[in-house]
Amino acid sequence: MGYVKLQEPHLRAFCQDAFEGFGFDREEARIITDVLLLADLYGIESHGVQRLVRYHQGIMKKSIRVDAKPEIVFETPVSAVIDGHSGMGQVIGYFANQLAIEKAKAAGMAFVTVRNSNHYGIAGYYSKMACDAGLIGISMTNSESIAVHTNARQAVLGSNPIAFAMPADPYPFWFDAATTVVPRGKLEVYKKADKPLQEGWAIDEEGHVTDSADRALQCIINKNGGGILPLGGNREEMGSHKGYGFSMICEILCAIASGGATSNHHVRKPGEGAGTCHSFVVIDPKIFGNPQEMKDSLSVFMQELRDAKRADEQVQIYTHGEKEAIRYQEKLKNGIDVNENTVKEMQDLCHDLSMDLASYFDEGELLK
Amino acid sequence: MGYVKLQEPHLRAFCQDAFEGFGFDREEARIITDVLLLADLYGIESHGVQRLVRYHQGIMKKSIRVDAKPEIVFETPVSAVIDGHSGMGQVIGYFANQLAIEKAKAAGMAFVTVRNSNHYGIAGYYSKMACDAGLIGISMTNSESIAVHTNARQAVLGSNPIAFAMPADPYPFWFDAATTVVPRGKLEVYKKADKPLQEGWAIDEEGHVTDSADRALQCIINKNGGGILPLGGNREEMGSHKGYGFSMICEILCAIASGGATSNHHVRKPGEGAGTCHSFVVIDPKIFGNPQEMKDSLSVFMQELRDAKRADEQVQIYTHGEKEAIRYQEKLKNGIDVNENTVKEMQDLCHDLSMDLASYFDEGELLK
Repeated sequence: MGYVKLQEPHLRAFCQDAFEGFGFDREEARIITDVLLLADLYGIESHGVQRLVRYHQGIMKKSIRVDAKPEIVFETPVSAVIDGHSGMGQVIGYFANQLAIEKAKAAGMAFVTVRNSNHYGIAGYYSKMACDAGLIGISMTNSESIAVHTNARQAVLGSNPIAFAMPADPYPFWFDAATTVVPRGKLEVYKKADKPLQEGWAIDEEGHVTDSADRALQCIINKNGGGILPLGGNREEMGSHKGYGFSMICEILCAIASGGATSNHHVRKPGEGAGTCHSFVVIDPKIFGNPQEMKDSLSVFMQELRDAKRADEQVQIYTHGEKEAIRYQEKLKNGIDVNENTVKEMQDLCHDLSMDLASYFDEGELLK
Repeated sequence: MGYVKLQEPHLRAFCQDAFEGFGFDREEARIITDVLLLADLYGIESHGVQRLVRYHQGIMKKSIRVDAKPEIVFETPVSAVIDGHSGMGQVIGYFANQLAIEKAKAAGMAFVTVRNSNHYGIAGYYSKMACDAGLIGISMTNSESIAVHTNARQAVLGSNPIAFAMPADPYPFWFDAATTVVPRGKLEVYKKADKPLQEGWAIDEEGHVTDSADRALQCIINKNGGGILPLGGNREEMGSHKGYGFSMICEILCAIASGGATSNHHVRKPGEGAGTCHSFVVIDPKIFGNPQEMKDSLSVFMQELRDAKRADEQVQIYTHGEKEAIRYQEKLKNGIDVNENTVKEMQDLCHDLSMDLASYFDEGELLK
């Protein structure tokens, strides 16, 4: 499976028009495109433009409602609960996070929760938004059930990522991780490569550890038992209950705090939204006194971590967000790696939307 | 090594007098005792009365200052930064958490950070305090460096527990976990039992995985490399960077947000406080609309998790805080298991404080 390198401005223009073609307005299309492209620029291919086809399908099946507008159903100076009315997750997430940022600037901190949404892209997009505004940003989302909690053999919890960002030099602290040991996308990569899974990644319908990516993925789809394990695997002695606990915090702060659906009650029916829930916490560092001092001390601490003695002199020590910041610059300059299958899907999409794919790219850019 | 069963009211009366004997006032001694006994009642022996001797040593070495009073050095309606002035961690923690609870009741949510404190007991004591008041409670602390981050062979991060509690029936959701794969106490247990460590728990000075509890503990003491691994072990493919990330969130919200010391700058010198930093976040569920509905929906969800298909029909599925709630009732009724070594330390303490240990307990209660 080959990759082509597409220039960021070309891909951005294409996505903008594609989402406008789906019926979103200019600003909505800009937001959705920006979320997808940040994932690609950060090297998180699973959440980038390769998801275009899945969003298209969701819109066709009316699981994602293009004309839905997020509605504030409850509000205080430090909080809001938003009903997404089954709209596009990125549009709802951006609206909710922007509201959290405004409230945090006024009140010092704010907590906005969302129910009845759909997949909103990388959680770290929203924490980065707050971080870019000089604030501490936290975002979480639940998802369909894929994770099997300690001692169970049935997936009840979602992938449930937790993202956290805070300004620092030369790179912000930018953490974004599923509370499962690996994301679903990793199993898909292993399946394509026909590689056995690591022990502690997944269990089958019977509750036994499986090294078959295909079987684990079938388990997730069939919902008859089996799935991915929490961070810490399936044994308490390796901290399984801790990954399970972080996943629970995510469910509580997303679904319980929004009056929405926990991951095990998400919907996969045409005509109905998934029921995904998100949360957005924004903290203005001013509430602790001196934001510049905080930024400086975090920068010093992260440098100490990078300068620590290495396990192996050949191996570099990273801080969270460093790899992403490096990839961002590199891909802005040299282009985004896009799978040839994704290019094919973009071509099909152009056919449906009466767009001309080639017109967005230089001659030869779409060829390997 | 044997255990005796001591009745909770007897042990409580003894601890109260012992801490008053150290120089704390009645209310301070009540708080410290309550934090220690909750750990014992929850079955977390490492953080219970067995720590008496360590606190005593800290006071003797003037690392813990008995007469210090926590001082609010910065404050907003939703926040405060507290300088602990090297006082007793439990006294400072209680003060800070109580302030967070009061501010959250007034403003909807609040965030209080603490610098220059000492060991404050179980993080979950403070989240439980908020939970008992019908609120969502979060608490974190850093500690001396014991954890080796991904690709390093030097402990920079602390054990860095994160605790989260929210009301539910029949048990609250009560999560309290170090962000390391295992706590230091587990290594001590393995050392005493001469058992090999699991792979993925610890590495040695050279950065290699070690199965020797003794060697790993020496590494932590000597500070020349080696230590306990983050949740997820030392390989990114098992999520090492995720445990490392959660530990970083703890450092940021405790040390960076209080202007205090990150774990690698903690002090272990006579006459100086450790420099431990804590944070306390309290959220009033009213800011999301209906607290009773939230409690009910969390209770339903936790029951669904307990009722999920089991990996093995013989194994029970637990929710977080369930085991602790069961142990609490059992130990209140039947007594707290206290190690004979701890009883010996209590006897020595009585000698120093001119107390009569036997006078607190029934005849034979102190004998196995």
